[in-house]
Amino acid sequence: MGPNSDLLDLLLEVQNLDRIPRLGYLLSGVSDPESVSEHTWHVAFLVWVLSESIVDIDRLRALEIALVHDLAELRTGDLPRTASRYLPAGAKQAAEAAAIEEILAPLPAKMQALWAEYQAGESREARLVKACDKLQMMLKVQLYESQGHEGLKRFWDNPDNFPDGGFRLIEQLFTQLKELRCR
Amino acid sequence: MGPNSDLLDLLLEVQNLDRIPRLGYLLSGVSDPESVSEHTWHVAFLVWVLSESIVDIDRLRALEIALVHDLAELRTGDLPRTASRYLPAGAKQAAEAAAIEEILAPLPAKMQALWAEYQAGESREARLVKACDKLQMMLKVQLYESQGHEGLKRFWDNPDNFPDGGFRLIEQLFTQLKELRCR
Amino acid sequence: MGPNSDLLDLLLEVQNLDRIPRLGYLLSGVSDPESVSEHTWHVAFLVWVLSESIVDIDRLRALEIALVHDLAELRTGDLPRTASRYLPAGAKQAAEAAAIEEILAPLPAKMQALWAEYQAGESREARLVKACDKLQMMLKVQLYESQGHEGLKRFWDNPDNFPDGGFRLIEQLFTQLKELRCR
Amino acid sequence: MGPNSDLLDLLLEVQNLDRIPRLGYLLSGVSDPESVSEHTWHVAFLVWVLSESIVDIDRLRALEIALVHDLAELRTGDLPRTASRYLPAGAKQAAEAAAIEEILAPLPAKMQALWAEYQAGESREARLVKACDKLQMMLKVQLYESQGHEGLKRFWDNPDNFPDGGFRLIEQLFTQLKELRCR
Amino acid sequence: MGPNSDLLDLLLEVQNLDRIPRLGYLLSGVSDPESVSEHTWHVAFLVWVLSESIVDIDRLRALEIALVHDLAELRTGDLPRTASRYLPAGAKQAAEAAAIEEILAPLPAKMQALWAEYQAGESREARLVKACDKLQMMLKVQLYESQGHEGLKRFWDNPDNFPDGGFRLIEQLFTQLKELRCR
Amino acid sequence: MGPNSDLLDLLLEVQNLDRIPRLGYLLSGVSDPESVSEHTWHVAFLVWVLSESIVDIDRLRALEIALVHDLAELRTGDLPRTASRYLPAGAKQAAEAAAIEEILAPLPAKMQALWAEYQAGESREARLVKACDKLQMMLKVQLYESQGHEGLKRFWDNPDNFPDGGFRLIEQLFTQLKELRCR
Repeated sequence: MGPNSDLLDLLLEVQNLDRIPRLGYLLSGVSDPESVSEHTWHVAFLVWVLSESIVDIDRLRALEIALVHDLAELRTGDLPRTASRYLPAGAKQAAEAAAIEEILAPLPAKMQALWAEYQAGESREARLVKACDKLQMMLKVQLYESQGHEGLKRFWDNPDNFPDGGFRLIEQLFTQLKELRCR
Repeated sequence: MGPNSDLLDLLLEVQNLDRIPRLGYLLSGVSDPESVSEHTWHVAFLVWVLSESIVDIDRLRALEIALVHDLAELRTGDLPRTASRYLPAGAKQAAEAAAIEEILAPLPAKMQALWAEYQAGESREARLVKACDKLQMMLKVQLYESQGHEGLKRFWDNPDNFPDGGFRLIEQLFTQLKELRCR
Repeated sequence: MGPNSDLLDLLLEVQNLDRIPRLGYLLSGVSDPESVSEHTWHVAFLVWVLSESIVDIDRLRALEIALVHDLAELRTGDLPRTASRYLPAGAKQAAEAAAIEEILAPLPAKMQALWAEYQAGESREARLVKACDKLQMMLKVQLYESQGHEGLKRFWDNPDNFPDGGFRLIEQLFTQLKELRCR
Repeated sequence: MGPNSDLLDLLLEVQNLDRIPRLGYLLSGVSDPESVSEHTWHVAFLVWVLSESIVDIDRLRALEIALVHDLAELRTGDLPRTASRYLPAGAKQAAEAAAIEEILAPLPAKMQALWAEYQAGESREARLVKACDKLQMMLKVQLYESQGHEGLKRFWDNPDNFPDGGFRLIEQLFTQLKELRCR
Repeated sequence: MGPNSDLLDLLLEVQNLDRIPRLGYLLSGVSDPESVSEHTWHVAFLVWVLSESIVDIDRLRALEIALVHDLAELRTGDLPRTASRYLPAGAKQAAEAAAIEEILAPLPAKMQALWAEYQAGESREARLVKACDKLQMMLKVQLYESQGHEGLKRFWDNPDNFPDGGFRLIEQLFTQLKELRCR
Repeated sequence: MGPNSDLLDLLLEVQNLDRIPRLGYLLSGVSDPESVSEHTWHVAFLVWVLSESIVDIDRLRALEIALVHDLAELRTGDLPRTASRYLPAGAKQAAEAAAIEEILAPLPAKMQALWAEYQAGESREARLVKACDKLQMMLKVQLYESQGHEGLKRFWDNPDNFPDGGFRLIEQLFTQLKELRCR
């Protein structure tokens, strides 16, 4: 077709991320749940809002990481939490790394590196995105419960769902969210 | 609760198989696709219909294999075809084996063994179910196409989707299905 | 087309059973309810699991009955409970019998006879499927309620929904299911 | 509760008519088809628009007939076309008559009589509603086809779907609709 | 095409009213809410039922007003309640008037005038339709709540949702509906 | 509740953006279309990918603009294209500005200013987001058409849907997209 035909293929494939439902909600009885695209947008939005009042953070880098953090699911689907438990250690992460490499092949290597940075979870920016990934999940759970859904208690019971990434603001938001639920 | 509480938990969890969409159709633009429960029913129905005119086959055993063949997806989800490519060799199968072991724990070991027989794909019964698994997929693809869906061509292009398992009747049905499509 | 063209027509038509929603749930406010295909799979699965520990039962025959028990709905739809009340006595059953005869016309007569056996409800196998048909319905109702649906009370109030078919195991499961709900 | 409690029950039950899908479209692969409420509104709208230029017609009466013409489906569901074929002659109509009598019990007898007038199909008003019932169906089929649905050919092949009720305007509209499709 | 081609265009466009969801319910977490067509049918049905026992009312005129009262939403969509607050005074009403004029252009002017009469809200018939518009909304809210939806409290808190239009019967129905909810 | 209660309200309300469908697709017969959240994510993703090879652009600022560009629709809904035509000049823009001001009230003024910059459409960053807003729409239209939807021709016929914002890369992508469609 032309010089950008690989790029166009990438842009078209990415449109399909809307078709992948967040399986944890679906299995909990939410019949029309959030898609992976929707989740990703909310995480990017949270990063944008919260990073504004956080010092010593590269906001652009944090936003970029948010945009790519779940992109591998285009090719791997959204595995339910139980699936990871059955796979050999590291297998899920390795599969996602391979998927990202193929999906983002038309882009410069440094853009692909952002996903690895997210997985490593060491940089301040990666920790922020990881915290926002869970904060967004619990915000959505709270919304679903306030609308009458009742199969979501296990989300609140899992301590892994409340990481603050070392950011005081996120710790406070988790606390307020729990208080809101108990009222 | 009582003597059958593990059994009741199993029976309730299995109800949720309806919530797992067949991801390949979803990614091809079928907005309300077949669930894994629906797929499984159709495979069992095919096995029932076709095995009637096949000699030297244990019909009960073939039906039992059909009923459990995708049950692991309750815990692993329906992985898209691309996902298997990225996972280490055997990882998907090992994960499904572990899932089946846990899901069917309240049942006798010989019932759990049916899934392993399916995976091995050596017995005449396992081969029949494997052929029906793909025949059902292509029947559904044909139905979707006859109703206006157009993103499903790659299903026809993949020779792996037309295994006859050594059964002449299934070979004939695949041939007729392809003819039907071309008209 | 060829020697199996009637058979292929049957196999394609059956794919459409997924499109028929279980109307009782829909009218109770479950917006994306179980299809008739899904219901049928669950009944077959229950028959498979429970028959294993029941003596003096033809397991293959029971599974076959489960697979065909609601197949007439391909042509008659899933009538709401109220509909049966308004039809002349026996009209619904006669209509379903005629539908089954046409749907299964390409198959041997003994396969068509399984549906009549189910309707008669006298054989041990038919009684097991009839009990599992209701047990499955109440398992799904319990799941829906645990996920926040609240319009389903009338299912629990109808004593016809708890037939044990003379099988002690099913009687126990109904009892445990009711206890689970009351907690 | 009070003097109008039967009336309130009626008004609440009627809200549920939205939950009953038009099964013919669903079985043709339209995944989110028109409900019976939507169909009924469109028929009433057609009667309103077309009756304006028809002489010697009681417009109020025609509108009233349109509003009640499918109301029995609240209790009987929307039977697929094949279902009527299997039921004894007159059984469907008798069931619907019984349903209407119960549903509309809180209303004056003359309101209930409108449904019987529709069934008889003799009055000029009943004939207009019957013609609009089919005209609306074919308008919706044309819309679905123009949006890419392809499983609807049998609607055009059935001559019963094009009654003009003796009204020249409706005859013209059917002709133009067929021309539109062929372009 | 022919003499009625504008009319046919109108009739086809109106079919699309089913595609417009009632946004207030959607934003409250009802995942498959009423469409504008469904709402309109229920309002017409209420007008038909209630006007029967109201003296000094032109029933045909009231029904006609009900049929057109939300038709502008074909072109403007169903604005959420908050949207009206942000628009300049009268802007929404002016937009809907312009939309109605274009949509109903193929019909006689007196038919278009019915929408203006509804907006003015002065005639006895317009007041009845306005009261039924809200009564229908609260009946649907009550149904949704009885089925487990919980995000709908703000509908009950808004006094504007309970207009009786000066009709004693409607005042009584609102009172009974509130009592029903509190039980 | 605490110091961040306004912020938490904002974060919860934003979750609801998933519930607002892109009405243009819905009215064209796409039964389960993209939500505003999904659209916004795709626009941000396009900005991220394309801005990498564009010189003299503030990438962070462009991403921030993408994230907020449709946020007003939380309160105004997604108006169909026809709606804008009926509203007084500037009314839609004024309503959205008022909505943004209220929605983003808990955030610093400079964050709110990004939406105004988008509307003005003068900065290089705003022009990039505006071009990506339409490019994303046409990518999705192309995907829908390749999956069998046929009611979308008017999107290709509207020259306003192909703005390149002065960026050569986007001009090339639009050209390739048109070529892809014509094959």
